Amino acid sequence: MNLSKNIIKEIQKISGVENIKISEADRYCYSYDATGRIFMPDAVVFPGSAGEISSILKLATKYRFNVIPRGSGSGTTGGSVAVQGGVVLVLTRLNNIMNIDTDNLVAVAETGVITADFHRAVESRGLFYPPDPSSSAFSTLGGNLAECAGGPRAVKYGVTRDYVLGLKAVLPTGEIIKTGVQTAKGVVGYDLTKLIVGSEGTLAVITEMTLKLLPLPKHKKTMTAVFPKMHDAASAVSEIIRRGLVPSAVEYLDNAAIRCAEGYLKSGLPVDAGALLIIESDGRTDSEAGTAIFELETACRDCGASETKIAKTKEETENIWKARKALSPAVYQIAPDKINEDIVVPRSKIPLMTEFLEKLSKDSGLAIVAFGHAGDGNIHVNVMLDKKDKIALGKAHKAVDDIFDYTLKLGGTISGEHGIGITKLDYMTKEIGPVEIKLMRDIKKAFDPAGILNPGKIF
Amino acid sequence: MNLSKNIIKEIQKISGVENIKISEADRYCYSYDATGRIFMPDAVVFPGSAGEISSILKLATKYRFNVIPRGSGSGTTGGSVAVQGGVVLVLTRLNNIMNIDTDNLVAVAETGVITADFHRAVESRGLFYPPDPSSSAFSTLGGNLAECAGGPRAVKYGVTRDYVLGLKAVLPTGEIIKTGVQTAKGVVGYDLTKLIVGSEGTLAVITEMTLKLLPLPKHKKTMTAVFPKMHDAASAVSEIIRRGLVPSAVEYLDNAAIRCAEGYLKSGLPVDAGALLIIESDGRTDSEAGTAIFELETACRDCGASETKIAKTKEETENIWKARKALSPAVYQIAPDKINEDIVVPRSKIPLMTEFLEKLSKDSGLAIVAFGHAGDGNIHVNVMLDKKDKIALGKAHKAVDDIFDYTLKLGGTISGEHGIGITKLDYMTKEIGPVEIKLMRDIKKAFDPAGILNPGKIF
Repeated sequence: MNLSKNIIKEIQKISGVENIKISEADRYCYSYDATGRIFMPDAVVFPGSAGEISSILKLATKYRFNVIPRGSGSGTTGGSVAVQGGVVLVLTRLNNIMNIDTDNLVAVAETGVITADFHRAVESRGLFYPPDPSSSAFSTLGGNLAECAGGPRAVKYGVTRDYVLGLKAVLPTGEIIKTGVQTAKGVVGYDLTKLIVGSEGTLAVITEMTLKLLPLPKHKKTMTAVFPKMHDAASAVSEIIRRGLVPSAVEYLDNAAIRCAEGYLKSGLPVDAGALLIIESDGRTDSEAGTAIFELETACRDCGASETKIAKTKEETENIWKARKALSPAVYQIAPDKINEDIVVPRSKIPLMTEFLEKLSKDSGLAIVAFGHAGDGNIHVNVMLDKKDKIALGKAHKAVDDIFDYTLKLGGTISGEHGIGITKLDYMTKEIGPVEIKLMRDIKKAFDPAGILNPGKIF
Repeated sequence: MNLSKNIIKEIQKISGVENIKISEADRYCYSYDATGRIFMPDAVVFPGSAGEISSILKLATKYRFNVIPRGSGSGTTGGSVAVQGGVVLVLTRLNNIMNIDTDNLVAVAETGVITADFHRAVESRGLFYPPDPSSSAFSTLGGNLAECAGGPRAVKYGVTRDYVLGLKAVLPTGEIIKTGVQTAKGVVGYDLTKLIVGSEGTLAVITEMTLKLLPLPKHKKTMTAVFPKMHDAASAVSEIIRRGLVPSAVEYLDNAAIRCAEGYLKSGLPVDAGALLIIESDGRTDSEAGTAIFELETACRDCGASETKIAKTKEETENIWKARKALSPAVYQIAPDKINEDIVVPRSKIPLMTEFLEKLSKDSGLAIVAFGHAGDGNIHVNVMLDKKDKIALGKAHKAVDDIFDYTLKLGGTISGEHGIGITKLDYMTKEIGPVEIKLMRDIKKAFDPAGILNPGKIF
């Protein structure tokens, strides 16, 4: 795709000369996301309003050039890269929080607000926005919505989708639409809001969102449980659910993940353990959170934990989370070419999946590092890799194929919170049948008849 | 619409002679729902499987006859009536609960399962399915999904949409589809599940659903608060939210509603009060629920409640709920022609809305009974009416128009949990713009190119 000078001039008229970049260096900066895969766009535009986005999309539909919406580019499946060239629309200038309504527990924010900034803003008013992907320090709300991000609190509070009440968005044809409600409930017409959330920027460009908030649970307790055997840690997760306990986070690191994090942090993690669970409880009162963490600790001990420790200070709590949060960079440091997958299995099937991964690693000779949101059955499986090793690459692709097949066999799904993007394109049909895919394609056509918005993704 | 003898024979072949009814008496029984509006279908079929439904829909697409899915017919907006004739598909034979998975907190059930039966089944295993519309004793899960039913617990737990993980459904063209996941999370492709939920039986016939469950909160506390002034009760609701309290129900009855319920029950309700709030808290422990109810009681007293009472026995609790549950039949008994609306306003706007309703009643001379889920801002407004009184009928329609306009002005929505069906058809465009409606129509066309599934609804 090559944008004509004329089109570039038109875009300059819309967003201002200073907000369109076409130098190779500038375009390179917006050519990749967290997958590391590089696709050069023809131009990078930083629009300042829904109106500008509307004008650009009208132009795109008229002249048939691609538009790829982008937040911070922290996605892990290639959702925001320009696989077929075109204009990357960087939405970070739309970064106002317009309203935090403490009486009605809703907030209105623009798409480019950084998730962690939004957390701080609502928490300073005693409110709570649960979705908290690992990337929250730099990812945008709009990107979180596009991929339906999750994070550790999803086990108790659900995912991004559950907190989006309404949207302002721009259709690929340029019309600005409003969907959903500003209230706690609403059933007027089809649910366009939830359809756009998780559609990976292929149906509309979200510019503004009305989000549901909760009262902030003021008290939290955090603990770690060390398990000699991975299998026992996985059983503990099932047991926690079976006992009706409601932790606000249940994260796990397998042995390879513990060693990875320790190599990066040098903080004295139990490198010989089969698995480490990080568990959190929260509540309105200290005793509520405290009672819960004791019950959770008991469940872990009953299932074979060799050591459990409840954090006593804020610093101890932060250190616990540091280990979990170090994992992505730590794994990346060891194997930048790693294949990072995001499977979900029914919680009770985690022991089967972890056994399967151990065997697969042994049989294939590939290192596999697994960690994630055990409370949801959501496992981030990292197949470690040096891409230059062609034999290993072939084995890794075969391993991913096997992991997906087994995930589906266990009643799971091939993506919990990262989306399909481009990296799982080839696997989509493993999970979704042809009739359902045709429906999705027809929906895409209804929104984007010219096919100019973020093409080459999902399908 | 007249079904040919040939088509009826074909349907008999599919579902058996005994499962298709064409006598006038039989058809009359399935000609109306809770709106009381009557539209005679041409035939009533009781299919026994998704396969049979598929065959019937293929026939319908081929011969262009309408098919109207129906659960118990308890809807209040005409979603299940045959406005343009055709075959009413009664789904009550599909009433198996296939699986209640205590390890993974999910259940799989067929569409015709009675909601209350499902509640009992999951609760007997220590689990909890929060959606609980007033009609739960006779409405079906499928009907609840089609309308995205709510109920009193939505203030804490959300609505039906929030508990549907996946669906098995039959497209109008006859293909059987599977949507969503069986796991806690999933983001593979567009969210067809949430699109079909709340689509009022116009996109697909739901035959089976995977539902998310929670651990059953074992302890509950229920209280009433009597307020001399409606305005103060409404303020109490806002204050409860402002204090970060999380009640599991906040229902209200205005003075007219209290008198209505008292006339029906003769149980000594405070007929001179401006309003009555019914508030519930729940928790894993007795002290958790107890602490919460005391805080809720304090908030009510601080806002002007003249009397508060926490139920001490199960019987007292049941008596409190009896008053709330008597309202629909009580109102119906007094004015069978009442216009029943289902507006939602931001919680903090309830005082404004109740003042508006009082003034509207005074100005128009029409009795208006209002009650509902105050915690959500969801108000069921009943404009009392004798249809034979043509002048009153005109005034009532004008009043409904005014109520909707004011609702939207306050940032609300014209339907919280009842849907659009046929009764709100004329008001749809007040809330939804032409571009959004065109998108919805295009989605409808993608699912139902022949336009045979539940025509004449929503749009």
